[in-house]
Amino acid sequence: MPYTFSSRRIHWSLKKTVIYFLSALLLSGSMNLALAQQQAQPDPAGLATGDKTAVTDAAGNPLVVPEPTDKTAPDYAQNKKAYDAYQAQSAKEPIALRLADSVGHMRIATNFSWTLLTGYLVLFMQAGFALLTCGLVRKKNAGHLMMLNFAAYVFAFLAYYVCGFAFQYGGTAINAAPTNLGGTPTLNHFLLGSGLWGFLGGKGFFLSGPAYDSGSLCLVLFEVVFMETAGYIIVGAICERITFWAFLLCELFIGGILYPSFGCWVWGGGWLSQLGITRHLAHGYVDFAGSTVVHGVGGFCAMALAVILGPRLGKYGADGKPRAFPAHNLVYVVTGTFILLFGWMGFNPGSTLGATDLRISVIAVNTNLAAVAGAAAAMTLWYFLFGKPDVTMACNGMLAGLVAITAPCAFVSPNSAVVIGILAGVLVDMGVLFNERILKVDDPCGAISVHGYCGWFGAVCVGIFADGTYGAGWNGVGVTSYLGKTGMGVTGLLHGDSTQFLLQLGGATFMAIYVFGFTYAVFKAVNMIRPMRVSKEVELQGLDVPEFGMVAYPEDSLTTLSMGPE
Amino acid sequence: MPYTFSSRRIHWSLKKTVIYFLSALLLSGSMNLALAQQQAQPDPAGLATGDKTAVTDAAGNPLVVPEPTDKTAPDYAQNKKAYDAYQAQSAKEPIALRLADSVGHMRIATNFSWTLLTGYLVLFMQAGFALLTCGLVRKKNAGHLMMLNFAAYVFAFLAYYVCGFAFQYGGTAINAAPTNLGGTPTLNHFLLGSGLWGFLGGKGFFLSGPAYDSGSLCLVLFEVVFMETAGYIIVGAICERITFWAFLLCELFIGGILYPSFGCWVWGGGWLSQLGITRHLAHGYVDFAGSTVVHGVGGFCAMALAVILGPRLGKYGADGKPRAFPAHNLVYVVTGTFILLFGWMGFNPGSTLGATDLRISVIAVNTNLAAVAGAAAAMTLWYFLFGKPDVTMACNGMLAGLVAITAPCAFVSPNSAVVIGILAGVLVDMGVLFNERILKVDDPCGAISVHGYCGWFGAVCVGIFADGTYGAGWNGVGVTSYLGKTGMGVTGLLHGDSTQFLLQLGGATFMAIYVFGFTYAVFKAVNMIRPMRVSKEVELQGLDVPEFGMVAYPEDSLTTLSMGPE
Amino acid sequence: MPYTFSSRRIHWSLKKTVIYFLSALLLSGSMNLALAQQQAQPDPAGLATGDKTAVTDAAGNPLVVPEPTDKTAPDYAQNKKAYDAYQAQSAKEPIALRLADSVGHMRIATNFSWTLLTGYLVLFMQAGFALLTCGLVRKKNAGHLMMLNFAAYVFAFLAYYVCGFAFQYGGTAINAAPTNLGGTPTLNHFLLGSGLWGFLGGKGFFLSGPAYDSGSLCLVLFEVVFMETAGYIIVGAICERITFWAFLLCELFIGGILYPSFGCWVWGGGWLSQLGITRHLAHGYVDFAGSTVVHGVGGFCAMALAVILGPRLGKYGADGKPRAFPAHNLVYVVTGTFILLFGWMGFNPGSTLGATDLRISVIAVNTNLAAVAGAAAAMTLWYFLFGKPDVTMACNGMLAGLVAITAPCAFVSPNSAVVIGILAGVLVDMGVLFNERILKVDDPCGAISVHGYCGWFGAVCVGIFADGTYGAGWNGVGVTSYLGKTGMGVTGLLHGDSTQFLLQLGGATFMAIYVFGFTYAVFKAVNMIRPMRVSKEVELQGLDVPEFGMVAYPEDSLTTLSMGPE
Repeated sequence: MPYTFSSRRIHWSLKKTVIYFLSALLLSGSMNLALAQQQAQPDPAGLATGDKTAVTDAAGNPLVVPEPTDKTAPDYAQNKKAYDAYQAQSAKEPIALRLADSVGHMRIATNFSWTLLTGYLVLFMQAGFALLTCGLVRKKNAGHLMMLNFAAYVFAFLAYYVCGFAFQYGGTAINAAPTNLGGTPTLNHFLLGSGLWGFLGGKGFFLSGPAYDSGSLCLVLFEVVFMETAGYIIVGAICERITFWAFLLCELFIGGILYPSFGCWVWGGGWLSQLGITRHLAHGYVDFAGSTVVHGVGGFCAMALAVILGPRLGKYGADGKPRAFPAHNLVYVVTGTFILLFGWMGFNPGSTLGATDLRISVIAVNTNLAAVAGAAAAMTLWYFLFGKPDVTMACNGMLAGLVAITAPCAFVSPNSAVVIGILAGVLVDMGVLFNERILKVDDPCGAISVHGYCGWFGAVCVGIFADGTYGAGWNGVGVTSYLGKTGMGVTGLLHGDSTQFLLQLGGATFMAIYVFGFTYAVFKAVNMIRPMRVSKEVELQGLDVPEFGMVAYPEDSLTTLSMGPE
Repeated sequence: MPYTFSSRRIHWSLKKTVIYFLSALLLSGSMNLALAQQQAQPDPAGLATGDKTAVTDAAGNPLVVPEPTDKTAPDYAQNKKAYDAYQAQSAKEPIALRLADSVGHMRIATNFSWTLLTGYLVLFMQAGFALLTCGLVRKKNAGHLMMLNFAAYVFAFLAYYVCGFAFQYGGTAINAAPTNLGGTPTLNHFLLGSGLWGFLGGKGFFLSGPAYDSGSLCLVLFEVVFMETAGYIIVGAICERITFWAFLLCELFIGGILYPSFGCWVWGGGWLSQLGITRHLAHGYVDFAGSTVVHGVGGFCAMALAVILGPRLGKYGADGKPRAFPAHNLVYVVTGTFILLFGWMGFNPGSTLGATDLRISVIAVNTNLAAVAGAAAAMTLWYFLFGKPDVTMACNGMLAGLVAITAPCAFVSPNSAVVIGILAGVLVDMGVLFNERILKVDDPCGAISVHGYCGWFGAVCVGIFADGTYGAGWNGVGVTSYLGKTGMGVTGLLHGDSTQFLLQLGGATFMAIYVFGFTYAVFKAVNMIRPMRVSKEVELQGLDVPEFGMVAYPEDSLTTLSMGPE
Repeated sequence: MPYTFSSRRIHWSLKKTVIYFLSALLLSGSMNLALAQQQAQPDPAGLATGDKTAVTDAAGNPLVVPEPTDKTAPDYAQNKKAYDAYQAQSAKEPIALRLADSVGHMRIATNFSWTLLTGYLVLFMQAGFALLTCGLVRKKNAGHLMMLNFAAYVFAFLAYYVCGFAFQYGGTAINAAPTNLGGTPTLNHFLLGSGLWGFLGGKGFFLSGPAYDSGSLCLVLFEVVFMETAGYIIVGAICERITFWAFLLCELFIGGILYPSFGCWVWGGGWLSQLGITRHLAHGYVDFAGSTVVHGVGGFCAMALAVILGPRLGKYGADGKPRAFPAHNLVYVVTGTFILLFGWMGFNPGSTLGATDLRISVIAVNTNLAAVAGAAAAMTLWYFLFGKPDVTMACNGMLAGLVAITAPCAFVSPNSAVVIGILAGVLVDMGVLFNERILKVDDPCGAISVHGYCGWFGAVCVGIFADGTYGAGWNGVGVTSYLGKTGMGVTGLLHGDSTQFLLQLGGATFMAIYVFGFTYAVFKAVNMIRPMRVSKEVELQGLDVPEFGMVAYPEDSLTTLSMGPE
């Protein structure tokens, strides 16, 4: 997620100071910062968002020359001179400066438009996932699947509204202000931790007060649908046997605390993203659009729940061998996959939070390439293993490529995207077989392999394939130069930065353990208090009628329901 | 619908005069205006649309200082001085001014992009409604449902092309020019009424002549899909028993006259929207994105038609008790609902007609919040009433929340959106039961309750919850200050403006009566001339084959149709 | 496809020279050009894309006055004076010029956003076509249809990645640089041909090196999904009998060479588009968004393949009379059509490659009008012919209107769009009957008629209905004036340019012959080496299980597959 590395509008110079004199000023600096920012006023109508200070050229150079404040800085004299010259010239070009206010506003508008529209595409993925998972299960549970997906959206959203957003982004202005959206200066408090060691945000509960701001709510719209993605991933692994009430609890857990916590650490300016500054670990942990933050979290949460619930009745024979339950509707499966591909065109390119970052085109092409490479690889491998190309595994291969490219999409070349896609396509086939045959974790839709394993793999790929062409200054690291090169961005093992690789490996693995462990602990306890699984009778009958009083296709089956007078 | 309150490009000063000297100058002013505007040339290639006069900063201040013309105005001297200073400085900054022409053009381009893309999302809702309503009915009518939805799009569009757009927006430049799109200066004539008392537009028939203009056609694209929404709403209430020819007549009626007439009054600069100026009734009648203009019109039209047609055979037993006809495909129902949610992300935020209005993010979040709150409320209430959460009522709850937030989405805070959603979720459950059990109006998909009742409620909510943070100068009211506060916008009862509340209540209720009455009168007559309902035999058999010669799923049923050689 | 007629940023003056002294300088000029351009550096992060030279006003006038270099040109003195004045003033407005750099970058960003988002809509058409074609066939092949559509996307994409894009656009900077996207200066070499006689591009293989550029990859994203459209069109004609391996070969052929070759000639700056300059044939061959380049190519390729494969078993009785195989799911058919309509809102308006071309609104409305007119006409005609409005033919009528308006959408008025739609609706009905009854080519989904015949017709319509309001300077013709009028654009027969009509007629017919012939030659040979059609037994059984080991709806049919323990 491409937060630019400082909120220039308000605390550019403070931030610079922090970077220069990190060890000494860390605590006091962040406290001053917090004080300064607490006075920022929300702007609900957007009538003060975007002025000349938001104007930059293609390379990111701001139009307005800032006044240098630190007189002890080595370049103070030079900066002061530049500032004075700018001031003098400004007096001669008042119309240009007023025009610049309009241009700055339009820049924010351009980015709002991009962020909202791509966010809508992500929202629409909900329909894709519903069709995909519904198509993959048995007819008797089709209605249940649709209702789970529907309720996932509804209840996880409400949890995110109440506290999830505040936990994730409540301190975002401190280290990761999205300048493309105007800076969200009112989200500037960590509830847990402070400064560069933030653990949980503390502003924006109920999207009120400081969050009732056009910039902040633009961020909310985009981020809530990302959270939803993690929320619906679990459906694929726990369906056909979980009770509705337990499922709603899972969604509140994901939307309210599980997703926001890890999300805060990586995207909300939290500690994992700042390890580059605090511990000199490359660019800190980097996950552009959420291979781990979204998909890994969803996938490993799903794994813990699937372990707790156990396999569906009949999934394993008396001999312990797995049996296949064929997908009841391949049309839904493929249509759902296409919708997800469509939505991913928002997911990854939208994560720049603005069209003024022209890397969006590279991201869009990379995302597509990994998708098709993943599909081709998974299909081909399955063909060699089992003699037929399998429709559902081809779809899973596409999703695997998409999940794996999500973290590195902005940092790699198209050719690397193809390689990542191929590897993910192989990984997802292997992962599905591994879960089914070795671990014996029953995952009806392959969600653990697609989102968990490939999510983990995607974050690692950043550390392998990132080519340094993008992300100069990411997470505040390498603003002026990196690895001795000006303009060098996030860099992986193949291009010379082994530290980034190790951090990615460590961070992604930590994510898997944290998410699995947290989920397992909470829901093992819940399950002991009240079983989360439906009764054997209900499972055999199908969950639609017992849980919701209707089946998905009442006229397809022999049924005793009244069918009208005919 | 957020038309900015004047078309600065052409008649800013005239408009100001009109406001100041309303009583004396009303007629002559509007006639002068009409004369001035009739000379505006359409710009089909957009090569003259957008220049420096379109440039404003975030707060809406224009870059170009206009020359004051009214020498008797109290601030004439001050304005003249500002104008002279601007002129003098302009001579020194010719490049900046030429650059401003480019910026103005880009501003229009940014808004075109937003308006078209969000319009496309609204267009796509057609697919959502088709799936939703098809899924809710019985299999034997599934093909008929799809064809009704398809034909609704086709024929209502043609009616809107012939005269609907001209009726609705043919005079829009007079009071409601969409400056975000360049002002549509060529749409400047009321066929019925004049000045601030416009009743029906009079330019743009067949989208020719004055409408063959890039700005006007941008408006057309966005508005025609709104009309389509009203057009397909009626399907949900009249399906499973209406003949195709009668249905086409209904669509021509809606697209050609019913929808455009009320739409003109509220969005085309017509009399209802101008009551704030003409009768000092708050900001005039306000409906941001169409709770009443679109949904209420569709819902109450549907109600009149459902009353005329009568209930489906077997809906009510001999004892008068209603029987349930289960939805034949829940997958379609939920998928359709997701598509509608996706489309609504265009419907409401797109109604700014431009991304340069940064309120779009607040609108998008509010819309989503009302949707999930409505779904949760309707689902929960149904659970308490009948013991199970019902999938179809959960979907209707989401739609109810969406319909209700459509009018107030731009004017309220996120917390109010949640409250509005909850109330709408309750209202839709109650409305469905009320229609089915008390009124005994058979509404197969709940369209009357979702769109009619909740549409009415949404407009009323503007008058209750609007918090004044947005809409300063709406409909020409409160440009400088409102309720004694600078920058105060549309305000509801809870924030101190009871007039707005009463006007909203009156306007929405008037809409319901007008739409129901007009539709009932016309189609009661039609029905007497030739019955609009299919024969009893056709209804029992299902309408697919009698009307269109094919069934939706020929291979699912026992059928004598040739199935090929196998 | 609206490439502006030169890449101003780099070779504006060179280009001018080429036009003035065409006969003498053709070869050497293009070679110099190639040398100059080979030094252009790709800009993968977009940090150098978009500066003040990208700034133009609504009418297209650039902000920066270029230095005239040709001292022998008649207007040299005048241009030099303007240039000197600009330079002198520039020194006085440095802030305005720096601001212009930002504005130029934002202009590119605005256009990237538009191009990517509309490209996504085109991508999504894949889902629409999958649903449409799947719904139109028999249940026993439903899984096969979905897999064909899915694999079409995957493998055609890979072929386009390897060489297709390079073939089509590898020389685009020479004659058709998309200045809206920054000019793609690195794509500047023809592999076959040179200068104004380009036959195949030669840069950008594997999207590497010169193509790893933000502008170029933006073009890639948009163009690859267009190619996909041609790729999936063939599915509709060859389904229910083609083997999977043969189908994959077809897709590699289309994505790798067939589509890119014709595409290069019309959109990549190739010879057909330059006939206006080289042979004074009006504006050269014009196809705005691909009636022929995309749909015609897909349709006539499909025709050749359908001829090779022969009709499905049982399609023609012993008496030679065709039998109908009813569509197995009308819900899919109509939903797919709506998705295609939605996607077409990207297809046509997106083909400006930028929202700064305000004609986009006219294009969007025209596209819609032709769609509804086509649907109404096809439906009505079928009703008169056979007594019932047919759902599938109504859908085909909409698609026919869309295909036919695709080439002329930018050049005609709304009323012409309606006429074009009506004619296409009639044509598609006739074409389907002609194929089925006269030619006896079995085309299960009507793809040949919809895309082939109506595609051909669409290109011809440019030559009939273009009204001259748009496209001044198209393909380098008529930059200053055309037909004696300043600002006159592409013009058809009805508005006085019979040359354009004849060229369109010739070009479209040439396309049909080239595509049919090339495809027929290649795949007749393939078919002789190894039959492309499945065995009779497989065709009777349905292709799902033999090819992919699973059926689309396993629980709908009596099946011996394990269904789990119940």
